[in-house]
Amino acid sequence: MLTVGILGGMGPMATVDLFAKIVESTPAHFDQDHLKIIVYNNPQIPSRIEAILNGAESPSHELIRSAQFLEQSGADILVMPCNTAHYWYPDIQQSIHVKLIHMIDHTAEYLLSKGKGGQVMLLATAATVQAGLYQTAFAARGLSLQLPGSEEQHIVSCAIEQAKAGKIQENPYLKGLADLIAVYRQSGVDAFIAGCTEIPLLFDQLPGDFCRIDPTRLLAQEVVQQALQEKRITARLQSS
Amino acid sequence: MLTVGILGGMGPMATVDLFAKIVESTPAHFDQDHLKIIVYNNPQIPSRIEAILNGAESPSHELIRSAQFLEQSGADILVMPCNTAHYWYPDIQQSIHVKLIHMIDHTAEYLLSKGKGGQVMLLATAATVQAGLYQTAFAARGLSLQLPGSEEQHIVSCAIEQAKAGKIQENPYLKGLADLIAVYRQSGVDAFIAGCTEIPLLFDQLPGDFCRIDPTRLLAQEVVQQALQEKRITARLQSS
Repeated sequence: MLTVGILGGMGPMATVDLFAKIVESTPAHFDQDHLKIIVYNNPQIPSRIEAILNGAESPSHELIRSAQFLEQSGADILVMPCNTAHYWYPDIQQSIHVKLIHMIDHTAEYLLSKGKGGQVMLLATAATVQAGLYQTAFAARGLSLQLPGSEEQHIVSCAIEQAKAGKIQENPYLKGLADLIAVYRQSGVDAFIAGCTEIPLLFDQLPGDFCRIDPTRLLAQEVVQQALQEKRITARLQSS
Repeated sequence: MLTVGILGGMGPMATVDLFAKIVESTPAHFDQDHLKIIVYNNPQIPSRIEAILNGAESPSHELIRSAQFLEQSGADILVMPCNTAHYWYPDIQQSIHVKLIHMIDHTAEYLLSKGKGGQVMLLATAATVQAGLYQTAFAARGLSLQLPGSEEQHIVSCAIEQAKAGKIQENPYLKGLADLIAVYRQSGVDAFIAGCTEIPLLFDQLPGDFCRIDPTRLLAQEVVQQALQEKRITARLQSS
């Protein structure tokens, strides 16, 4: 069975969220049915947002060091619960010998397989939007993507910042986020991508039955499937 | 700042729960204010309950290996979100050079410092009860402890088993647990110890304002305090 490595700390609560979703997505009756998981919650990785928007210190070195730490600790497959950090995905993947599942590409692949993508809006940090991570992944697959206007983007960014500081239920931007979603639903958007790992935590606080695309949950389901598939392949090889 | 190591996987959701409580207990405005945490979710540790109750394979070897893995990975202080596993605490602590905080002793110390202990009931696995872990810690501090009757213990054990299989909200033993608590509250018990790491997850589903002693939360608060204290000591040494 593959050991899963979580390259975390960006932010810590988003890391908890992915860890929980991996455990929830694992078919298990006993402790022993679960996957071996190593979480490296490294909050010392420099701000991805500051690096992209303001040219501050690049997190690249610390991201690579963290990925190598996980590989050396025995992780066979890696996941990284931070959208913005995927800006450095090529650098990280090049520096290790195990696979790092690309959360954003996987989300686009999932939407392609489900036939969605025409009326999808991205809710993410300004840095993720500016880095064009989702736009690139969607365009490469012929999918279109809507973005909030600049004032609306400010509300999304503030809501994320507050969530990173631990304000989930009492986040002062929850109403702004709810209003934004209501307006775009009326104009025909039928799905919203939680393009920052803090957004699913905020989605849980919002009313309404709007369609939520949670890349963290999709990533959890994918890594569980790949880790268990490997288990089945190994079992088949051992029995043959 | 100390790096926290979580010796987890017993069960995985209880490990998520402790990780979340450590993050929640950390005073932080930015990702970078949080603690570095390494989680080793190792569900391959043999069943602690089976070993104590039925003489099955001892988890001692795998517990020691996991603790040594965390130490070698750079953890400076360890925590273990499984009450029953504390039966092997001396073996684990002897095999490493960093401190493993004893969750059960810490809970007893906390109650002693708060002047509680006269009307406290333990809700835990049959194995934890039989191993006498809480009884020993309480007796050593002159605190008394009530235990459920054998039929009631069966309800508690079944509720924990279902929770380990992921049944929290739809746990079939929630009503039995609620009834048990109501009966003992009437007979004068004024606090209930969640003496198994799955119990706090079930407490969240129960109505009423009964006093819940959550050793997992106490452990989270303690390890955060110790890790940050070290940070302050280091800062003081560096500035002097």
